[in-house]
Amino acid sequence: MAVVPESRVLTFSVFKWSSYSSTYLPENILVDKPNDQSSRWSSESNYPPQFLILKLERPAVVQSITFGKYEKTHVCNLKKFKVFGGMSEENMTELLSSGLKNDYNKETFTLKHKIDEQMFPCRFVKIVPLMSWGPSFNFSIWYIELHGIEDPDVVQPCLNWYSKYREQEAIRLCLKHFRQHNYTEAFESLQKKTRIALEHPMLTHLHDRLVLQGDFDACEELIDKAVRDGLFNQYISQQEYKPRWSQIIPKCNKGTSAQEINRDDMNSDGDDNRPGMRGGHQMVIDVQTETVYLFGGWDGTQDLADFWAYSVQENQWACISRDTEKESGPSARSCHKMCIDSQRRQIYTLGRYLDSSVRNSKSLKSDFYRYDIDANTWTLLSEDTSADGGPKLVFDHQMCMDSEKHMIYTFGGRILTCNGSVEESRTSEPQFSGLYAFHCQAGTWSLLREDSCNAGPEDIQSRIGHCMLFHTRNRCLYVFGGQRSKTYLNDFFSYDVDGDHVEIISDGTKKDSGMVPMTGFTQRATIDPELNEIHVLSGLSKDKDKREENVRNSFWIYDIARNNWSCVYKNDQAVKENPSKALQEEEPCPRFAHQLVYDEMHKVHYLFGGNPGKSCSPKMRLDDFWSLKLCRPSKEYLLRHCRYLIRKYRFEEKAQSEPLSALKYLQNDLSLTVDHTDPDETKEFQLLPSALFKSSSDFIPLGFSDVDQTYAQRTQLFDTLVNFFPDSMTPPKGNLVDLITL
Amino acid sequence: MAVVPESRVLTFSVFKWSSYSSTYLPENILVDKPNDQSSRWSSESNYPPQFLILKLERPAVVQSITFGKYEKTHVCNLKKFKVFGGMSEENMTELLSSGLKNDYNKETFTLKHKIDEQMFPCRFVKIVPLMSWGPSFNFSIWYIELHGIEDPDVVQPCLNWYSKYREQEAIRLCLKHFRQHNYTEAFESLQKKTRIALEHPMLTHLHDRLVLQGDFDACEELIDKAVRDGLFNQYISQQEYKPRWSQIIPKCNKGTSAQEINRDDMNSDGDDNRPGMRGGHQMVIDVQTETVYLFGGWDGTQDLADFWAYSVQENQWACISRDTEKESGPSARSCHKMCIDSQRRQIYTLGRYLDSSVRNSKSLKSDFYRYDIDANTWTLLSEDTSADGGPKLVFDHQMCMDSEKHMIYTFGGRILTCNGSVEESRTSEPQFSGLYAFHCQAGTWSLLREDSCNAGPEDIQSRIGHCMLFHTRNRCLYVFGGQRSKTYLNDFFSYDVDGDHVEIISDGTKKDSGMVPMTGFTQRATIDPELNEIHVLSGLSKDKDKREENVRNSFWIYDIARNNWSCVYKNDQAVKENPSKALQEEEPCPRFAHQLVYDEMHKVHYLFGGNPGKSCSPKMRLDDFWSLKLCRPSKEYLLRHCRYLIRKYRFEEKAQSEPLSALKYLQNDLSLTVDHTDPDETKEFQLLPSALFKSSSDFIPLGFSDVDQTYAQRTQLFDTLVNFFPDSMTPPKGNLVDLITL
Repeated sequence: MAVVPESRVLTFSVFKWSSYSSTYLPENILVDKPNDQSSRWSSESNYPPQFLILKLERPAVVQSITFGKYEKTHVCNLKKFKVFGGMSEENMTELLSSGLKNDYNKETFTLKHKIDEQMFPCRFVKIVPLMSWGPSFNFSIWYIELHGIEDPDVVQPCLNWYSKYREQEAIRLCLKHFRQHNYTEAFESLQKKTRIALEHPMLTHLHDRLVLQGDFDACEELIDKAVRDGLFNQYISQQEYKPRWSQIIPKCNKGTSAQEINRDDMNSDGDDNRPGMRGGHQMVIDVQTETVYLFGGWDGTQDLADFWAYSVQENQWACISRDTEKESGPSARSCHKMCIDSQRRQIYTLGRYLDSSVRNSKSLKSDFYRYDIDANTWTLLSEDTSADGGPKLVFDHQMCMDSEKHMIYTFGGRILTCNGSVEESRTSEPQFSGLYAFHCQAGTWSLLREDSCNAGPEDIQSRIGHCMLFHTRNRCLYVFGGQRSKTYLNDFFSYDVDGDHVEIISDGTKKDSGMVPMTGFTQRATIDPELNEIHVLSGLSKDKDKREENVRNSFWIYDIARNNWSCVYKNDQAVKENPSKALQEEEPCPRFAHQLVYDEMHKVHYLFGGNPGKSCSPKMRLDDFWSLKLCRPSKEYLLRHCRYLIRKYRFEEKAQSEPLSALKYLQNDLSLTVDHTDPDETKEFQLLPSALFKSSSDFIPLGFSDVDQTYAQRTQLFDTLVNFFPDSMTPPKGNLVDLITL
Repeated sequence: MAVVPESRVLTFSVFKWSSYSSTYLPENILVDKPNDQSSRWSSESNYPPQFLILKLERPAVVQSITFGKYEKTHVCNLKKFKVFGGMSEENMTELLSSGLKNDYNKETFTLKHKIDEQMFPCRFVKIVPLMSWGPSFNFSIWYIELHGIEDPDVVQPCLNWYSKYREQEAIRLCLKHFRQHNYTEAFESLQKKTRIALEHPMLTHLHDRLVLQGDFDACEELIDKAVRDGLFNQYISQQEYKPRWSQIIPKCNKGTSAQEINRDDMNSDGDDNRPGMRGGHQMVIDVQTETVYLFGGWDGTQDLADFWAYSVQENQWACISRDTEKESGPSARSCHKMCIDSQRRQIYTLGRYLDSSVRNSKSLKSDFYRYDIDANTWTLLSEDTSADGGPKLVFDHQMCMDSEKHMIYTFGGRILTCNGSVEESRTSEPQFSGLYAFHCQAGTWSLLREDSCNAGPEDIQSRIGHCMLFHTRNRCLYVFGGQRSKTYLNDFFSYDVDGDHVEIISDGTKKDSGMVPMTGFTQRATIDPELNEIHVLSGLSKDKDKREENVRNSFWIYDIARNNWSCVYKNDQAVKENPSKALQEEEPCPRFAHQLVYDEMHKVHYLFGGNPGKSCSPKMRLDDFWSLKLCRPSKEYLLRHCRYLIRKYRFEEKAQSEPLSALKYLQNDLSLTVDHTDPDETKEFQLLPSALFKSSSDFIPLGFSDVDQTYAQRTQLFDTLVNFFPDSMTPPKGNLVDLITL
């Protein structure tokens, strides 16, 4: 078994610096004296560029960097910095982008030191401060340590790989360039001498057929086979999701569209046939039967107690109960939480909000109900969960179902209290509920974590308005966001329910503006355990002061394996593409107090109602119902698209010499590859005939005036088609000439 | 005559942006509404990177950029920014680095749009804000205009040139790489097909002789001819000056070193044979006879009236007069100013400092004297220049001689006043003297500019402690620096004495930290009209508060033609190279109140005395005398150096196969090329024999393991020798593999 080499302290000297001020010399970073305020490097100003370049005594694989600090917080500490590394000063790659906490503890960061699984060596490490904690202060670094592997037995092979890799990539760029410019002899000599492959043989074959032979049918066959063999899967997985909202107009009882219903049939709650407007309601989805259950809420005036089920297949709401209280179920309520046990077909509800005017020792009991779907019956599990060792009455908490172990987890929420007399109605400190587990079988509660503001590794701060999700495969709860009183929380942690262990994913101190969903906006989250993703829809802030006029929804995906947020869509993208178009594209208006559920089997989200936050109509609530699909191109779509590209080019080539034949080809073969129901595709198709009138020289890209035009254009098509193949198969993406700067 | 195409407004769209906040959309920069505070782009934060990318409607030569502003100053205005441009987003070059004034006026900047005389096109322009005026505020841009040439008749040839240029440089990099790796066939195919030249034929010949043939004698001959033909001149002109200070130990009267003189012979003024310690004295140099004249000063206790001449040739001081007052000359004085008319061999002195205790209406007369060198006589030109229409009595002013038109110019200085009674000794506002001209022939004065704090184009602010120099070829006075009371002035302007016209070179508002000499430190400046350079020595601040412990001298050169400051040496370089070595290297300690004169014929500076600012010895003054030469490598040095490199390599090659022969070669031929009086060269030479014991594989550079070692090592030597030739002759400096990033 191979011995994994140990990471050791690496020796380095301070090689170059952008500046320094006074006695705060660069060399000071070599000594660690936390109690000496002068034992640091300080830049002369915070004007960019500022940097330190360290030179390692010998080439090494640099695996981590440690920053020492001063014994007290300091305005010059680095809030944001980057680290680069390389074998020469001119050729460095980014190894780390991060920031330090403004405290007195050393911090160590892993540095990028591998490409795929191959370690690469560095001789130089460059630290680039970007922001200090005090905005106009100079940058200071107190102490630096580098750790890695210096052992020549390990490093020399890395150096050899590095040289070979650079040589190989350089030669491949040459080969690509020579082929594009038809320097055939030079291409062949170089290839023969170096024996370096430009690309996968399949693509060489494609090039031969397409560029050299003009055999377009063979190209289509090759592409077809490639798609069927799954070669386009990597491309598909790299595409961004496009969100497609669709407003759901359900059928009404009478079998017609709900919009056609006779007004006389409407009761004071709105439509007989679908839930009325509300916020603070609860929805759960039974994925097996594709049924969405909705209960309770606030309609602007009063709490509701109606209970509905929506069948996706039937596209129809059914009212299970107009008043659950009349059926031994919960009284009217809002800001409660529900969860569903799809396995046992049971739904639970806990908590509610009570106006202070109606709070008393009786009403403040935390009742806990279960609904059995098949029996259509409610069971009171507890009159007061607090008396049973569970949480007190809370609202804005979270609850998750663990069907496998038949457990329920509830966390957070604000505890409702009352003050006996009017004289004593001082505002007391709000209390937040901890993390509890309910053992469904035994009917008992356990307190897992009390609300704690300590910073211990297993401590959890309780909160309201947060998101909590249960990952049925790795059996962890994921919690993020929320607020305590006026403070918005940024942290993100997981709780392993079997190991009773908290793991901090992000403590929320590093502000990666624009890179993670912004706090303070109502977030609704769902989880897809199969894709290992968490989905977050950010809407309107509950806080009037934070409500900006132009706020729109934003949708984020958190990749659990890669610990990486990506934005599916956001405010500015809507503006960017086409302001007027974006507004016309159907999308629910931003809101809070709404509900979002996810069908992880069919990969669809459903959203209902909520509070649009209209200051002119504070009682207005919504009753709209939407579905959301996140779409990526499919294999079928890509195949059709490639055929389209090939035939479009073929048409353009024909157009130059046989216009009549080209026109016929356009109307038949090319037309076949177009989706005539898609407005964009149709529009593009209608513009194609103009090729019959254009001079072919319009198509020559910059830098190819020395090449035969047909050859150059076919090369362009080849480059386009090649993009769908995995990087490991393709020629290099870059171009030799693009490396030349003026 | 070719028509110069006009610069027009260019059409562009906002293509990409890093972020924006609220309603401050990027598109807002397309409209100019200075009175609308929302009509701007604002970044979401000032975390880097922030940018806007503009896309031109069509490729254009972009010649200037105009920034609009808000009607009032604004914290979000850009204090520092860069502009980049290029034909693609990925490949941009820096066009401008600058900053805006924080005011309400539009500002237009020229953008780099030529390489040598060839215009290049851009399609994209990227604006990168770096600092805002309010340190922690977002960046805002109110309005942007781009001007340039869009006319296809002009732009198309630029595009063609651009493509050709990039292709050519890419191919040259390939050729260089192929030759280095001995891919002979690929090299020849490529060269034959593209007909692109890797280098000047002379260097191909050098490569052939050196790398392919190993004919070292032929190489030496080629280098020898190249040097003699002036081919190394461009390299020499690009080298930095190295400052060489040398303390001057003059001979004494008795013909022996001044250090050996008998102590009994010393009078109370110090040495009989050379000027005693002083500050606030004056020196001028007569370049024709290489004589330095020194008069007056303050020795820590009293003003001095001795007058000396130093002969560079004789290395000897002669005392012209122990007390000029006794010889109808000026009384003892300090902080006066002298200038020399070398043509007529006359020296003038004006102004002096008087302690307030001795100021009265009589002593405050501004006397003006002339000394005739050959007649050794003083003439009182005026008892009080103020009465003659000239300046009042001033100190810390500046005075320059215009021999050609027989004029003297004096500017600035603080006007000495007295307050009659003690009761009235309130501190009054200091007054500064204006710009005056003295017509030597007529003996009359003219006031050219009064002190003015107006911002008119011809207004000049008077000051003290500034530098003023007269450029005898372009007949301009150059004035910079100085202070008014507590304010340090940063501006730099010239005054055309014949045209009576002020030209602002720099208004001093743009802080280019580290790029220009720092204000507030005593500056002594000299001018070289032939090289068109101004030299500035920065020393110690007169202001006790500004005196840092570790301040050292810094020496700057201002290139008048290029309007460009460069630093010859500075604080940190001394630390960088070798802290202990730098301190040992002779250099006068920092000081103020010293004198620096320049012999522009022999290119030597001379420095004498001054105040070292020792708070423990406030009366201590210096009497040391130094010369400063700014040195660059000479042709002879470079030729010897190249021979050394060639023979050193030849030795190393021999060492691998014929050690005895190599050793003999080392001791004879190679030794001949070494300067055995130079410690560095000697030390390196003594280490060479170790090559006899080394394995040759130690010398293989990274990335050449596939190449024959001798070929690779000779290639390295070739690359080194080629660096001395002009860039227009050499292969590209870069390497193909260095363009590959991980």
